[in-house]
Amino acid sequence: MRSKEVLKQLSPYKQGKQTKDIQKEFGLDYIVKLASNENPYGFSDKVKNVFQANEPAFHIYPDGYTAELRYLISEKLNIRPESLIFGSGSEEIIQMLCRSYLTAEDQVIMATPTFPQYKHYSLIEGAEIIEHPVNTDGSHPLEKMLASVQENTKIIWICTPNNPTGMSLSKEELESFLKDCPSDVLVVLDEAYVEFLDPEKDPDALELLDKYTNLIVLRTFSKAYGLAGLRIGYGIADPLIVETLDKVRGPFNTTSVAQQAAVIAFSDQDFIRHTYQENKKVLQQFQAFLTSIGWDYYESEANFLLVKTPGSGIDVYDYLIRHGFIVRPGELLGIPNTARVTIGKEEDMKVLENALKEYQEQFNQVR
Amino acid sequence: MRSKEVLKQLSPYKQGKQTKDIQKEFGLDYIVKLASNENPYGFSDKVKNVFQANEPAFHIYPDGYTAELRYLISEKLNIRPESLIFGSGSEEIIQMLCRSYLTAEDQVIMATPTFPQYKHYSLIEGAEIIEHPVNTDGSHPLEKMLASVQENTKIIWICTPNNPTGMSLSKEELESFLKDCPSDVLVVLDEAYVEFLDPEKDPDALELLDKYTNLIVLRTFSKAYGLAGLRIGYGIADPLIVETLDKVRGPFNTTSVAQQAAVIAFSDQDFIRHTYQENKKVLQQFQAFLTSIGWDYYESEANFLLVKTPGSGIDVYDYLIRHGFIVRPGELLGIPNTARVTIGKEEDMKVLENALKEYQEQFNQVR
Repeated sequence: MRSKEVLKQLSPYKQGKQTKDIQKEFGLDYIVKLASNENPYGFSDKVKNVFQANEPAFHIYPDGYTAELRYLISEKLNIRPESLIFGSGSEEIIQMLCRSYLTAEDQVIMATPTFPQYKHYSLIEGAEIIEHPVNTDGSHPLEKMLASVQENTKIIWICTPNNPTGMSLSKEELESFLKDCPSDVLVVLDEAYVEFLDPEKDPDALELLDKYTNLIVLRTFSKAYGLAGLRIGYGIADPLIVETLDKVRGPFNTTSVAQQAAVIAFSDQDFIRHTYQENKKVLQQFQAFLTSIGWDYYESEANFLLVKTPGSGIDVYDYLIRHGFIVRPGELLGIPNTARVTIGKEEDMKVLENALKEYQEQFNQVR
Repeated sequence: MRSKEVLKQLSPYKQGKQTKDIQKEFGLDYIVKLASNENPYGFSDKVKNVFQANEPAFHIYPDGYTAELRYLISEKLNIRPESLIFGSGSEEIIQMLCRSYLTAEDQVIMATPTFPQYKHYSLIEGAEIIEHPVNTDGSHPLEKMLASVQENTKIIWICTPNNPTGMSLSKEELESFLKDCPSDVLVVLDEAYVEFLDPEKDPDALELLDKYTNLIVLRTFSKAYGLAGLRIGYGIADPLIVETLDKVRGPFNTTSVAQQAAVIAFSDQDFIRHTYQENKKVLQQFQAFLTSIGWDYYESEANFLLVKTPGSGIDVYDYLIRHGFIVRPGELLGIPNTARVTIGKEEDMKVLENALKEYQEQFNQVR
């Protein structure tokens, strides 16, 4: 059987090693995964309580309309219920956007490095990809991106804070970008890490949705809300976009457990505040530490830091994994000589800092 | 923004009303959902126990390789681990098949009525659809389907037992079909209801996989296993097909809860035997009842029955919903003057039978 021609150029996603496999391979007891920007504080206790007290009705199909979560988010964020689309992670909404809007005649624009699924799913639809390297500070080269808009440009992908560099867009930058962007180009603003932003750095993208009907904002329960294992995220856009996406959406694309957990998690904003504060504190401590050993990094507004490593990121990865830390080498993210490190709990980061200090000392000796 | 041209012809999936909404609308306490072929006996108790005892690690991403479930199924079904692909329900694998193999140049063949997502997802890729009405007994018109194979035929969709008619393919029919089908046409055998088949009617499709590398068998945990709310199913095929599907698959397309529940559920075959036996008994009782009131039906090897209603299926639906029973009118499934009824628990089916008897008496009076 011939598959689509374009698939020959593509590889399946290669996930990092599973924690338990690394434990086995290296004979480790202590192991800290800092590779996938998961929440080290877990998730709201209230979620836990409900799942341990309730009889789950796993045998019943989920509500394909996601009504309870839809009305809750609609009310709390002051947006229309019909402006919401839910996905198996916001990642699935990226897939739905490509399946709804892209053909082999279309072009899409994005920064590089950025979240790899924009490119992967756009390629599957046969679209032409225009990539612009991020600025030296890791921010999106918005002017260059705008300048490359053509007749057939269908989507511009913007990740803010950007994964893996961590830089975020200001309100002014976003507004000015949207003003200059043709209104028939879909602007996807992926805010997977928005809950980690300082309030004064939040671009308040939702306020722009009424004015810019070509804007869709993506959010997720996988990061700050700590529900990565349950796969649920959402998009907010003009109802016309939502209606289009709904046509390609699987009728039951999120689980009943995910919907229920998300309702509880979204209602517990104290947990999100706690996560935000702890992350900010530990991020600053880690940045200060890196400076103290002479390492540089990209400024980050998220729960990870892209660290500039003295040699290859893979070398740092190999070293750290033997000490029980899993990080993501930049070589796998398209930005060599870096490592993306999720900001873990304070006590674990102290152990990591000791390991990195040792690494730096050995590196100096070898040189 | 222009979406794909073909989406203009498509509508989003319209799910049936939610049980709690019907309860409210009609002021009902007693309500039995017989519309989605869910398992009325729920799911394995062992699944329940684990979720109430364990601390869930919702904040960690699922294993994208689904290793534990993969090795378990591989061992129990005696197939290679690399022959397995997992989806958010087998429904998502249907979507992945279309995204991997179909373009606007291709043609697909299917029966009608059958599971509607074959057509929906094929249309999204722009493929041409050839539909052959089922035989009068509800079985697939295999010869006609084969006769319509052309140069550009890419996929033939076969659902056995067929949803909504309930008829299944015999081993001989399947083998003869595969022998005559060109080897570059992908044959999708959707066995969502295979666990309800009498053992002597099982086509043993897995035994044909080595010989026919153009065959993919789809199975699900949504029906007999009772895990519809968790969204997990799988496909079994030649590793080359699996490798292709893996390129379009979302990296974390099933949840960690679903994977864990499926492992436990698959290990509890006693529950499946119990479900099979109860279903068979109650199905036969219901068939005998229908005959007693002079109603006909399609022979079924599954956990539902497509009943030929004296008037429109919508009329029966409207009547039954006021008595607390939700069934699926055939008008929505493309087969008017029928209703698809999930085989529920014996005690609920007795109440349903009384309601249907009353309906028939009123129908006679009106005539």
